[in-house]
Amino acid sequence: MKTRFSRRHFVGGAAAAVGALGLRPDSALAALRLPPPPPGVVPADPYDDLAKLASNENPHGPSEKMWASMDLARKYANRYGYPDGDIHEKIAEHHGMGTDNIIMNAGSGETLRVAGIAFLGHEEKVVGVEPTYTSVYRVASGIDADVIARPLLPDHTQDIDDLVRVTKRNYRDVGLVYVVNPNNPTGVIVPDEDIRHLLDNIPEDIPVLIDEAYHHFIRDPRYSSAVKYIKEGRKVLVTRTFSKIYGMAGLRLGYGIAPEEMIDQMRTYATGSVNALARWGAAAALEDPEYEKWIRDTTIALRDATMTELRGQGFEVIPSECNFFMVHTGRPASEVRAEFRRRDVAVGRDFPPMLDYLRVSIGTEDEMKRFMTAWNEIFPDGMTTTGRR
Amino acid sequence: MKTRFSRRHFVGGAAAAVGALGLRPDSALAALRLPPPPPGVVPADPYDDLAKLASNENPHGPSEKMWASMDLARKYANRYGYPDGDIHEKIAEHHGMGTDNIIMNAGSGETLRVAGIAFLGHEEKVVGVEPTYTSVYRVASGIDADVIARPLLPDHTQDIDDLVRVTKRNYRDVGLVYVVNPNNPTGVIVPDEDIRHLLDNIPEDIPVLIDEAYHHFIRDPRYSSAVKYIKEGRKVLVTRTFSKIYGMAGLRLGYGIAPEEMIDQMRTYATGSVNALARWGAAAALEDPEYEKWIRDTTIALRDATMTELRGQGFEVIPSECNFFMVHTGRPASEVRAEFRRRDVAVGRDFPPMLDYLRVSIGTEDEMKRFMTAWNEIFPDGMTTTGRR
Repeated sequence: MKTRFSRRHFVGGAAAAVGALGLRPDSALAALRLPPPPPGVVPADPYDDLAKLASNENPHGPSEKMWASMDLARKYANRYGYPDGDIHEKIAEHHGMGTDNIIMNAGSGETLRVAGIAFLGHEEKVVGVEPTYTSVYRVASGIDADVIARPLLPDHTQDIDDLVRVTKRNYRDVGLVYVVNPNNPTGVIVPDEDIRHLLDNIPEDIPVLIDEAYHHFIRDPRYSSAVKYIKEGRKVLVTRTFSKIYGMAGLRLGYGIAPEEMIDQMRTYATGSVNALARWGAAAALEDPEYEKWIRDTTIALRDATMTELRGQGFEVIPSECNFFMVHTGRPASEVRAEFRRRDVAVGRDFPPMLDYLRVSIGTEDEMKRFMTAWNEIFPDGMTTTGRR
Repeated sequence: MKTRFSRRHFVGGAAAAVGALGLRPDSALAALRLPPPPPGVVPADPYDDLAKLASNENPHGPSEKMWASMDLARKYANRYGYPDGDIHEKIAEHHGMGTDNIIMNAGSGETLRVAGIAFLGHEEKVVGVEPTYTSVYRVASGIDADVIARPLLPDHTQDIDDLVRVTKRNYRDVGLVYVVNPNNPTGVIVPDEDIRHLLDNIPEDIPVLIDEAYHHFIRDPRYSSAVKYIKEGRKVLVTRTFSKIYGMAGLRLGYGIAPEEMIDQMRTYATGSVNALARWGAAAALEDPEYEKWIRDTTIALRDATMTELRGQGFEVIPSECNFFMVHTGRPASEVRAEFRRRDVAVGRDFPPMLDYLRVSIGTEDEMKRFMTAWNEIFPDGMTTTGRR
């Protein structure tokens, strides 16, 4: 199979894809250029055979009801304006907000980028932690804004007091405070009381962006969505996505919830156009709680079983409320990742400065078995392999 | 059927949809709120029964080969990085350019918006004609840039000498020159020699955006794509789309072709993420020339037959190289549009200042028959109905 691997087939630039999968960009395999497939044919691809635990995806994809809805919406593939399952209204109703409080985007990644552009001016600063999901930081760099990335606390939580201090100290220059909750790549939540503490203690005219991409997986009662703070009239933008729990990462539909004036500021910078099938898929998703529950329960069961097994071997695993977790490898995660890749298991990229932690997404039951089999080969003596037990 | 019409079902805001279809926003019908459809069901909708000649869509949708490709790509619906049919590389090869010269977007509408944001600063000016496709002008307004919109010549062509003069006169403030070729809503081309004249006579550091959304329908030998000017090293951005000839308007995939440094400037403001199925549909489209030819030939045959019939009745029809045309109604097009709407035929919106011209998109053979039947009812005595014959 491996000789058929073509780096040209991957989205996001060959280098990125090859890197994500642990193939060295300069390898002969990676440089292979195969003849293009005939039209209308998606060739079998070695990608399909990987255990894909690298990108926090839902391994099951959209539900049957969602596909049924998307199939019936094929007749709108060629249209600009069409019945769209009232997805905008349904999202608003789902949160008890008005449609003017919702901006729909091509994934919440677009919402994050648009927020960065809308709220950060030239040489303004975004305040947040590191490591975290860096989309907003990359936008900031792109428009010559600055990033103040603060370290996590030793227990991997976000230091909210520190964010408050830094924001107040840089008050004139801060355009945006950014909190991913739960944080990616750690999977650790910010308790609701800390979110409130943040909002109560920074100047109220600074917008706070709270990225809740993994909202649906959380069971910790200390967590609560920040949507309620928008209803209190605070300058808060919450982002959500259909990419995770609903399995629509490749179909691209996410959204932001915020006060109307913040949505208005963002609209100029957004595409304002979402795929027709994705609209119908999302509309069906919101009315398919059984699927949502099944994905959540299955994911959490597999996650907890895997974490328990790793802990049993003596490894530190960071408590996670997401469809992924981080495990302390005790040696460079990049080496471990390469060993996994040789066993056709793709795991998470580096997240500096946590370079000896590996992020593992939760896949199917079969994929998690393949992960553990590979893990046991890579660490045959448990944590002692690293020489640190 | 009409009593089941719900304005909530339409994309793009209820008001816009209702306006486009000729329903008065304050009508009882328009205000109806029907119970939501059950999940997984796309209800039959009166929209489906309209003759849809309002939005320059391909009435046939994607080809069978394109759907086959998209169906096989369903397995990537839940993925971020995946084999994607090499669509970026295929587009670049299609134009004989490098991948660094291509920016893929969610429809060329996104490319236009991104270009506006990237190349227009605060209080800078975009120079173009009126009427035209106004997406760039709207972006300009959104970021407090200015629009210099110049009138068309009496024969409905774009006055290139005038654009040159105005650009030079405002040199310091002009961020972008915008030419839609062929122009929308008129369907009239700018001959290649005029494009060259424009590029040769404005300051060479001003970016020129040439929107070639309707490129595939053109047969006039005086036209030529402006991609060659990018190869000459000029500061030109050409936009193209899979929405028109390939029937993918609702799936959202368009792109820009430009010098690498212009693409780099735009990237910060783009979503950078396109639907997985759309990628595979587009890859198949580029390898399905029979479908492209069939759509072009069918569209042009229906267009020319309809134009001939209208001219035979004494109406002025503007020569078109697109999948739409404009006809002189001799009275407010808004009134005529409302009469069409009562007959379940949707035609183009107002394009000020050409308020007594109606834009008619080319639909299926059946839709064009319904258009002519309605036309003959609305204008029973040909052009004399308007009192101007």
